[in-house]
Amino acid sequence: MDFQQASTYTEPQHLLRDIASRFDRERVAISFSGAEDVVLIDMAHREGLEFNVFSLDTGRLHPETYAYFERVREHYGIAIELLMPSPAAVADLVRAKGLFSFYKDGHGECCAVRKIEPLRRKLGELDAWVTGQRKDQSVTRTDLPLEQEDRAFSTEAHRLLKFNPLADWSSRDVWAYIRTHKVPYNELHDQGYVSIGCQPCTRAVGPHEHERTGRWWWEEATARECGLHAQNVVKILG
Amino acid sequence: MDFQQASTYTEPQHLLRDIASRFDRERVAISFSGAEDVVLIDMAHREGLEFNVFSLDTGRLHPETYAYFERVREHYGIAIELLMPSPAAVADLVRAKGLFSFYKDGHGECCAVRKIEPLRRKLGELDAWVTGQRKDQSVTRTDLPLEQEDRAFSTEAHRLLKFNPLADWSSRDVWAYIRTHKVPYNELHDQGYVSIGCQPCTRAVGPHEHERTGRWWWEEATARECGLHAQNVVKILG
Amino acid sequence: MDFQQASTYTEPQHLLRDIASRFDRERVAISFSGAEDVVLIDMAHREGLEFNVFSLDTGRLHPETYAYFERVREHYGIAIELLMPSPAAVADLVRAKGLFSFYKDGHGECCAVRKIEPLRRKLGELDAWVTGQRKDQSVTRTDLPLEQEDRAFSTEAHRLLKFNPLADWSSRDVWAYIRTHKVPYNELHDQGYVSIGCQPCTRAVGPHEHERTGRWWWEEATARECGLHAQNVVKILG
Amino acid sequence: MDFQQASTYTEPQHLLRDIASRFDRERVAISFSGAEDVVLIDMAHREGLEFNVFSLDTGRLHPETYAYFERVREHYGIAIELLMPSPAAVADLVRAKGLFSFYKDGHGECCAVRKIEPLRRKLGELDAWVTGQRKDQSVTRTDLPLEQEDRAFSTEAHRLLKFNPLADWSSRDVWAYIRTHKVPYNELHDQGYVSIGCQPCTRAVGPHEHERTGRWWWEEATARECGLHAQNVVKILG
Repeated sequence: MDFQQASTYTEPQHLLRDIASRFDRERVAISFSGAEDVVLIDMAHREGLEFNVFSLDTGRLHPETYAYFERVREHYGIAIELLMPSPAAVADLVRAKGLFSFYKDGHGECCAVRKIEPLRRKLGELDAWVTGQRKDQSVTRTDLPLEQEDRAFSTEAHRLLKFNPLADWSSRDVWAYIRTHKVPYNELHDQGYVSIGCQPCTRAVGPHEHERTGRWWWEEATARECGLHAQNVVKILG
Repeated sequence: MDFQQASTYTEPQHLLRDIASRFDRERVAISFSGAEDVVLIDMAHREGLEFNVFSLDTGRLHPETYAYFERVREHYGIAIELLMPSPAAVADLVRAKGLFSFYKDGHGECCAVRKIEPLRRKLGELDAWVTGQRKDQSVTRTDLPLEQEDRAFSTEAHRLLKFNPLADWSSRDVWAYIRTHKVPYNELHDQGYVSIGCQPCTRAVGPHEHERTGRWWWEEATARECGLHAQNVVKILG
Repeated sequence: MDFQQASTYTEPQHLLRDIASRFDRERVAISFSGAEDVVLIDMAHREGLEFNVFSLDTGRLHPETYAYFERVREHYGIAIELLMPSPAAVADLVRAKGLFSFYKDGHGECCAVRKIEPLRRKLGELDAWVTGQRKDQSVTRTDLPLEQEDRAFSTEAHRLLKFNPLADWSSRDVWAYIRTHKVPYNELHDQGYVSIGCQPCTRAVGPHEHERTGRWWWEEATARECGLHAQNVVKILG
Repeated sequence: MDFQQASTYTEPQHLLRDIASRFDRERVAISFSGAEDVVLIDMAHREGLEFNVFSLDTGRLHPETYAYFERVREHYGIAIELLMPSPAAVADLVRAKGLFSFYKDGHGECCAVRKIEPLRRKLGELDAWVTGQRKDQSVTRTDLPLEQEDRAFSTEAHRLLKFNPLADWSSRDVWAYIRTHKVPYNELHDQGYVSIGCQPCTRAVGPHEHERTGRWWWEEATARECGLHAQNVVKILG
C-alpha cells in the first residue's frame, strides 16, 4: 500500500475533516510547535473540528514561544498538552555533558532526550498525528506526502499514521493564510525568525536566506532534522 | 536544641569546612540558583572542598541563566545536577490553567510543581543542604540563622538541616566578593537584574529599588518566597 | 533628450566605470544609506574607482547603523562625508512639534529638515550622484532608469544627473552579491530589518512581507518615499 | 565674592524660586540631559515657575532618550530646545577619524564638537543656567556648590552663573523624589542604566557599581567629565 496516494484531499481543510472522521478523538492529535503550524489549529477551529493538541516543551524554548502558546490557548479556547522530557534523562545528559553539548556533539543526543522520547511516549497512545511539515522547508522534505505511515514511530505491535496537510503549501502560502485570517503568531517572526525551535538552536535569518539556515546552523543541511521526522532523512540518505 | 547557635563559624568559609567535615559527601549539597549564590561554589572551590551542587531547572529560566550554569560548570570543573519538574504535573497544571496562571492565582501553585516537588525529592536523599540566603534579601529573611533545622522539608522520619553561610552578608558584600575574585556571574546582572528566578516572574529593578521588587512584583512583599524557604514566612506570619 | 536611454551600460560595474570617466571626481558622489547600497561601494572598490561617498546622518539613525558606517569606512579605507541637518531647523521643528511629529503629520516635514535640505546643499556641489535605488523596492520605483536627470534637485542654473546602477537588480540579487563577496552589512538585517532608514521610522518586517512595509508603515504605500527620490512619486501620481 | 555662599536656599525648590526671581526669563535656562535631572523640571512645574529648558542632542543619543524627551515635553507641556552640533564640525571629525574616535583618543574631542560648542553658543545668550549635577555623582564633583560662577563658559565680556540645586542630594534622594511624584524617567533606568549620556559612551552598571562606571569606562575616573562641567576637573587636578 502506498500511503502517499491514500489521501485524496489536497485542501488541508478537507484532509483535516477526513482525519477527524476516520479516528477516535483520543487517538489522533495535532502537533503544535509554536511556529507556523498554528494554521492547522486555525483551520480545525473554523471547520468546527475538535482535535487534541500537544506541544513539545523541551525546557529550552524561547520565552516568546511560551507566551505564544498561551495566546493560542486563549485565542482558540483549547487545552494544550505539554510534553516535557524525563527529569532523570535530562539530568543524566547535563551531568555528563553540560547544557550545550549539541554545539559540539550535534543536536541528536539532546533532541533524543528532550523531544523524541517525550514524543514517543505520546505517540504510543495515538493511531495518527498531524504535523505542519512542508516540502519547501528543507532539502529533507521535498518528497513529503499528505499522508504516510510513520516509520520512525510505528512498531510491529502499533502502526501509526502521520498526516502533513500543509505538505504542498509554500512558506508564502502559510504566511498569506496567517495574515488573511489574523491568526496569532510567535512574535519572534517579527524579529527575523522564520523556523523556530529551541532557543539555543534557533537564530534569525537574514534577507533571502533559507529558513532552515536558522536551525542547527553549525551542522550540515541534511542533518537539520530533529528526529521527529527521521524518516525524511532516511529517504534522502537511502 | 537551638539550631541557630549550633554553628559558631561566622566566616562562610569556616562554616563550609565545618559542614564538609560533618556530613557524608553524598548526604549534603549546595543549592545553586544561577544568581549570586555562586559565591558558595567559589568558596568551596578555593577551600578544596568537594560539594555536590544542584540547581532547580523549572523549565522557565532565562536563556542567560542556562548559559550561566554552563559557565559555572566549566569554570569550576563541577557537575551540576538539574532538578526538573515532573512532566505529568506540569502538563496537568498547564492543561487546566495555561502557562501563566501565576499572574492570576499567585506563584504558589506553579512553584509547588516546578520547584518544591523536585526539591523535596532531592532533599529526601540528603541530611543537609546549603543555600545562599541572606538576611538583607527580604523582609521574610531578617532572622535568618547560619544553621537551622529545615522545618519545611524535614519529616518525622527524616530530619534535615539547612545552612545559610551568607546569612550575615549584605548584597554589597556578595558583589564585592564576586568582583574581587572574578567569579562568573549571570549576565542579566548587567542588565538591571538583581535577584534572578524564573523568566516570567523576574524583572530588572530600577536604581535604588529593593532587589525583591524584581520578583513576583504583582504580589505582596510577604508572599515573595517560593516555598523553598517556607519557614521564613511562617515565622513572620506566626 | 531622454535620460533613460543615455546609459547603455547595464552591468552596474560598467556603469560605475562610465560615470567615473565622465565626471570630475569632486563633482560626483555615491549616496550611501547604511543599508544594501554598500554594493555600489564594494563594486567601485573592486574596480579601482575612487568615488566620494556621503551619508545622510539625520541624527536619528540606529546605533547599529552608525556602527555599520564605521565598519564600511574601515573595510574599504574610505572617508564618509556625513551630512547632518541644520541645528536651527531641527530646533525649530522640535520646539513646535516635538520629536515624533511624523507619526501624526506624516514624515514629509521631518525628512525635509533632516534629509532633503542637507542633501540639497550637497547636491548643489555636484554634477551627478549615484544611488542604490531599485525598481523592486517600491510601487513608486517600478520605472526607475539607470540614468536620469534629477528633476527634484536640478535647478535652471544647475543641472544634476542621477544614476541608479542597481535599478534592474532584485533584492535577491543584492543579497547574493553581499554574501558572495562577503560585503559588510548592517547587523539589523539579521534581526528582521530589510530596508533601513531612521530608527523611529523603520521596523523589522515579518516573513514574506514587502520590505517597504518596514518604513513609514502608518502611511500609504505611495507616500513611502522620503523626498530624496521625489520624482518617483510625481511620476506615479502624475 | 564667594559664589559658593551666595545662595542660602538649600531646598532646591527655594533655590529655583530665587533663580526665577533674579533673572530675566530669557536669560536663564535649565539644562535637561534626559536622565535624572528631570527633577528640576518637575519642581519648577509644581512651583509654577516657567523656565526655558534646553537639551544637548549630540546626534548619538539612545532611541529611548529621544522617546523620553518627548514624554517629558508632553507631560509638562513645555518646549525643549534641542542644541545640535555644527554639521560641518561633525563632518570634519568623522571624515578624519570616523564615528568612534573616542574609544581610541578619549571622549574629549568628540564632546567638544557635539556638546561643548553647541552649549557654548547657547550659554552666550544666558546669564545663568541650572544643572542637575550632584556631589555624589563623581569624584570630580565632591565640592560642588549650589551656586557658582561658571569659569568654563564665562568670558571677560560675559559673566555666567551656574546653579546646581541638587548638589547636596544623593542619587537615592533623586530616585525617591521621582518615585514619590511619579515623575517620568528614561526607560533605560529599568535596564540597569544609571547615569545616561550618549549611546556609544554609556552602559548599564552592575549591582553596587558606581554610576559613573557606566560612562566612558575605558578612561580614568578623573576624566569622566564631558567638559560641560570642566571646572570640576580643574579643581581636582589643580
